[in-house]
Amino acid sequence: MPGPVPAGSPGRVVFIGAGPGSADLITVRGARALGQASVVLADALVDPALREYCPDAQWIHVGKRGFQDSTPQAEINRQLVAHALAGHRVARLKGGDPSVFGRLEEEIQALLAAAIDFEVIPGVTAALAAAAAAGRPLTRRGSGRSVSLTTAMTRDFLIQPQRAGETQVFYMAGRHLPDLARHLLAQGWPLQTRVYTVSRAGWPDQKASEHALDDLERAADLHAGRPTVVTIGVGAAPLSPCTLADHHASPDANA
Amino acid sequence: MPGPVPAGSPGRVVFIGAGPGSADLITVRGARALGQASVVLADALVDPALREYCPDAQWIHVGKRGFQDSTPQAEINRQLVAHALAGHRVARLKGGDPSVFGRLEEEIQALLAAAIDFEVIPGVTAALAAAAAAGRPLTRRGSGRSVSLTTAMTRDFLIQPQRAGETQVFYMAGRHLPDLARHLLAQGWPLQTRVYTVSRAGWPDQKASEHALDDLERAADLHAGRPTVVTIGVGAAPLSPCTLADHHASPDANA
Repeated sequence: MPGPVPAGSPGRVVFIGAGPGSADLITVRGARALGQASVVLADALVDPALREYCPDAQWIHVGKRGFQDSTPQAEINRQLVAHALAGHRVARLKGGDPSVFGRLEEEIQALLAAAIDFEVIPGVTAALAAAAAAGRPLTRRGSGRSVSLTTAMTRDFLIQPQRAGETQVFYMAGRHLPDLARHLLAQGWPLQTRVYTVSRAGWPDQKASEHALDDLERAADLHAGRPTVVTIGVGAAPLSPCTLADHHASPDANA
Repeated sequence: MPGPVPAGSPGRVVFIGAGPGSADLITVRGARALGQASVVLADALVDPALREYCPDAQWIHVGKRGFQDSTPQAEINRQLVAHALAGHRVARLKGGDPSVFGRLEEEIQALLAAAIDFEVIPGVTAALAAAAAAGRPLTRRGSGRSVSLTTAMTRDFLIQPQRAGETQVFYMAGRHLPDLARHLLAQGWPLQTRVYTVSRAGWPDQKASEHALDDLERAADLHAGRPTVVTIGVGAAPLSPCTLADHHASPDANA
């Protein structure tokens, strides 16, 4: 078992992005760091199979189950600090990427206040897994040069003005899909806007559906109770076959 | 050596996000898929150490060295199709995530036209590695609920209107930093806007610098010749220590 660091040494914290689903979507660096931890504070939404990387560590479930905080943020902060001050190598395992909708800010601030050393290992965020699942790139040459990721976890939606050539991805709970549709329609998005929706992206039981904006509320039942990403704009469109000639192939141009 | 699939079987292509830097930023799933490939078409910017996952595969360098295409896109498409039709398990290894600024669209279209099966394995995109490197989360509670990723690879910049509470990240070549600064200033961004710049994010030789917008052009020399991400807005700000009391700690609220 990886023990605490030597007596008198302060512990440290490594924030690890677990990726958006199955355990094998963690990075190799993240998996190795997990194996060096003596205490793991894990979001409830991360794959329990990740425990195989650190069978002897103390594994503590904290936070976010079904988008409700099961552990208050202040208590997570307190535990991070306490375990590190006790000399542990603490892994803080977060679903997706820690820097995107991960409330990483508050946990780092608590460590800074206690002068505890930390490192952040990035992870795959859910929008990328949803795009991969469908083979629908978020950017498209010429027409799609920008992607925005927005949280819509409450009824207080932040709907940004539509930008030309942008793909917008909303991170939300499946049950809020009708609210999202209403807000987008109120903002003037066309009724027939294509919406591509994936819940539990990156998991074996992921579900995808496609809707026109005025039909999106029908998706609420399918995705209810599941973390959901909703893609709208250029990146929501499926790809169609394209021959080499369409890409102006020049057979002799191989550099 | 992993050979071609059995005679008569079609090959297939797996697009793999290599992550933004060092080989260990690839996902576990991506590393395993690499190990099953008989042919690898690799962007020049991916870590050569990834070859250790597939020592017996044919490794072919294609594309993007210093942001100049060394292999034309149509030729990459042609090779993908040809190796798959020859029955190979083809890994197409792309820096970062394939769905973000990866020109994945064109390669998928070529495979669809040839009726070749494919899969996409997501990866960590550079903006996340830059945020991790500095411990500066791209989203902040209350003030930062949206992140946009925009490519600025040419002088034809796509500068979007500033949105409240948004972090903007630009993917670009270091030499274009003065152009970006000019465009942002022309759009009315304040001279003192904080800009956080990281080149070669995720690599051992990554460099970070911090500037006011009217001073950003001075960063061009530091980051010249290197892939660079520029973060502006809420997520560019460093974090300061924050005590538990600041987070309204409630010691008895541990659920």
